[in-house]
Amino acid sequence: MRIALDAMGGDKAPGPIVAGAVQAVSATPDLSVVLVGDRDAIAAFLPADAPHDRLSIVHCTQTIDMGESPLEAMRRKPDNSISRSWQLLAERQVEAVVSAGSTGGMVAGGFRLRRFLKNVQRPGIATIMPTAKGPCVIVDVGANIYPKPSHLFQYGAMGRIFAKHMLGKDNPTIGLMNVGEEEGKGHDLAKKTFSLFSNSPLKEHFVGNIEGRDIHRGACDVVVCDGFVGNVILKLSEGVFDFIMKMVGKEIVAPLPNDRDVAMQNLKALVGKYDYSTFGGAPLLGIDGLCMICHGSSGDVAIRNALMLSAKYLRLNLNDKMIAELEGLPTPEDE
Amino acid sequence: MRIALDAMGGDKAPGPIVAGAVQAVSATPDLSVVLVGDRDAIAAFLPADAPHDRLSIVHCTQTIDMGESPLEAMRRKPDNSISRSWQLLAERQVEAVVSAGSTGGMVAGGFRLRRFLKNVQRPGIATIMPTAKGPCVIVDVGANIYPKPSHLFQYGAMGRIFAKHMLGKDNPTIGLMNVGEEEGKGHDLAKKTFSLFSNSPLKEHFVGNIEGRDIHRGACDVVVCDGFVGNVILKLSEGVFDFIMKMVGKEIVAPLPNDRDVAMQNLKALVGKYDYSTFGGAPLLGIDGLCMICHGSSGDVAIRNALMLSAKYLRLNLNDKMIAELEGLPTPEDE
Repeated sequence: MRIALDAMGGDKAPGPIVAGAVQAVSATPDLSVVLVGDRDAIAAFLPADAPHDRLSIVHCTQTIDMGESPLEAMRRKPDNSISRSWQLLAERQVEAVVSAGSTGGMVAGGFRLRRFLKNVQRPGIATIMPTAKGPCVIVDVGANIYPKPSHLFQYGAMGRIFAKHMLGKDNPTIGLMNVGEEEGKGHDLAKKTFSLFSNSPLKEHFVGNIEGRDIHRGACDVVVCDGFVGNVILKLSEGVFDFIMKMVGKEIVAPLPNDRDVAMQNLKALVGKYDYSTFGGAPLLGIDGLCMICHGSSGDVAIRNALMLSAKYLRLNLNDKMIAELEGLPTPEDE
Repeated sequence: MRIALDAMGGDKAPGPIVAGAVQAVSATPDLSVVLVGDRDAIAAFLPADAPHDRLSIVHCTQTIDMGESPLEAMRRKPDNSISRSWQLLAERQVEAVVSAGSTGGMVAGGFRLRRFLKNVQRPGIATIMPTAKGPCVIVDVGANIYPKPSHLFQYGAMGRIFAKHMLGKDNPTIGLMNVGEEEGKGHDLAKKTFSLFSNSPLKEHFVGNIEGRDIHRGACDVVVCDGFVGNVILKLSEGVFDFIMKMVGKEIVAPLPNDRDVAMQNLKALVGKYDYSTFGGAPLLGIDGLCMICHGSSGDVAIRNALMLSAKYLRLNLNDKMIAELEGLPTPEDE
């Protein structure tokens, strides 16, 4: 397995990015990583005892910055590390691309290449969210802010395969994010998507509309929504979690007379349990190949986990399973 | 001050609804409440020592249920308590309507009446959210799922008046909910709304785009978004909060050797602090009059607080202040 890693992407690049690659390759005998970025900057962080036979460098001179408009930056900086990573995938030199850099850049790179899985109309980013009944998958969290009903329908189908094989869910259920539970609620996109699910072979796995408060109750295994709403869900959940954990530290733990230290350890363990870096990355589902998008603040652990997650995804042939699933479903026509 | 209260609306109606009215009227000498609903059902919950001179009943025979399509239910049940409450407002027999019943019904009733504040194009629901820097206002959380940029612009203007006078913010700032911070991010609605704020007298109070994680950090005092996104934000925040508090109870508090009881008291205090019923209700801003929408599970405390909040709103003449603010601003034309 060969994976291209954008060594220049992320707030802390390249040091922890390279370190994560070294860790992943050391732990995974059949994994090779191609580090894409400035040769000297990368080499400076490669320890002498790293498995150099499975770590190579593809040199490039440019980086897309977080604040830049991705499309504009890609035109202006053709030798950027994200475009070069995608190029390696297009040439079949690698099976996956991984980056903690610009999400917009990663998505734009994939959409420009247009190498989608068979029958997939538009890829979407899947992310994992903790719930009272174990993790669930949310698709899309930011790749597609003008989706059609058929896109959301396919997100449900692909999300189920992901939840089944990556999260070990027996028979994953799909919920449609909406503003009310009853059929007929919400905007046109929601109504039409509801109808697509209800009139397809996926209807037996479709729990119908879910509301914001249902996600963390574990109302379903796959939550389907447009990329704008999904992006808000992802970042808001993070924000509420941070806010509450600070309150818990201040108002529950700090005033304790005897057990303050134990309670603080428990609090840190709880924070660690829901740390994004445990999972590592969010795949852009529907790409022929694999695109794994990491949090901008990813450190070595997050990068190592994202690479090992990618290796697992490839090993399980999830793309073939998604193609087979989509072939058994109608390809809905949007008006 | 006379306020119509939908006595039949809410999961627990009419008992706690009537009790809340009795409490509010007892605590507020210049407040009268008109209880709208089934006369006998209401009377059964009115204690003998209640201030009957300021508590009256307007009898009606029907109720809109939570699961019903509001528009359809209003047609089929013309004598429902929400429509009758709005009718009292239209006839200027009351200055406000309050309900814990169907949100869709309350909004539909207001939109059908079309008695909007001068220059207001489309009312929006404002709700209060706790943040690290005190409460903020979010508009809209579900009245308007197809807003135009001009609607969001007016939500910012009205939200500022609300934040200033109801939350005591000196010079409230406005943020636009989006998927990234940089100008040019997001869908057309976001881009056009950004431009309206940036080219208006409100620009000095406009902090630009904010992301999901910024709300609870207290990035701004007024968050502006479409009603679909706002509804997800409102309910998701509630869901994440519930989920985490359960985790905190189980993983931080329960294992404590000595301070378990103190910690549990602190936890309950924290939960109480962020209980929706503390604030009471969410106003539909932009109505000529006042429409206060309460949580479906409102008990007597929430109803009492909603009535007293409404009285405060009326006493402060917030509507006049909003009209004055809107008159000083351009009324943007949407394409």
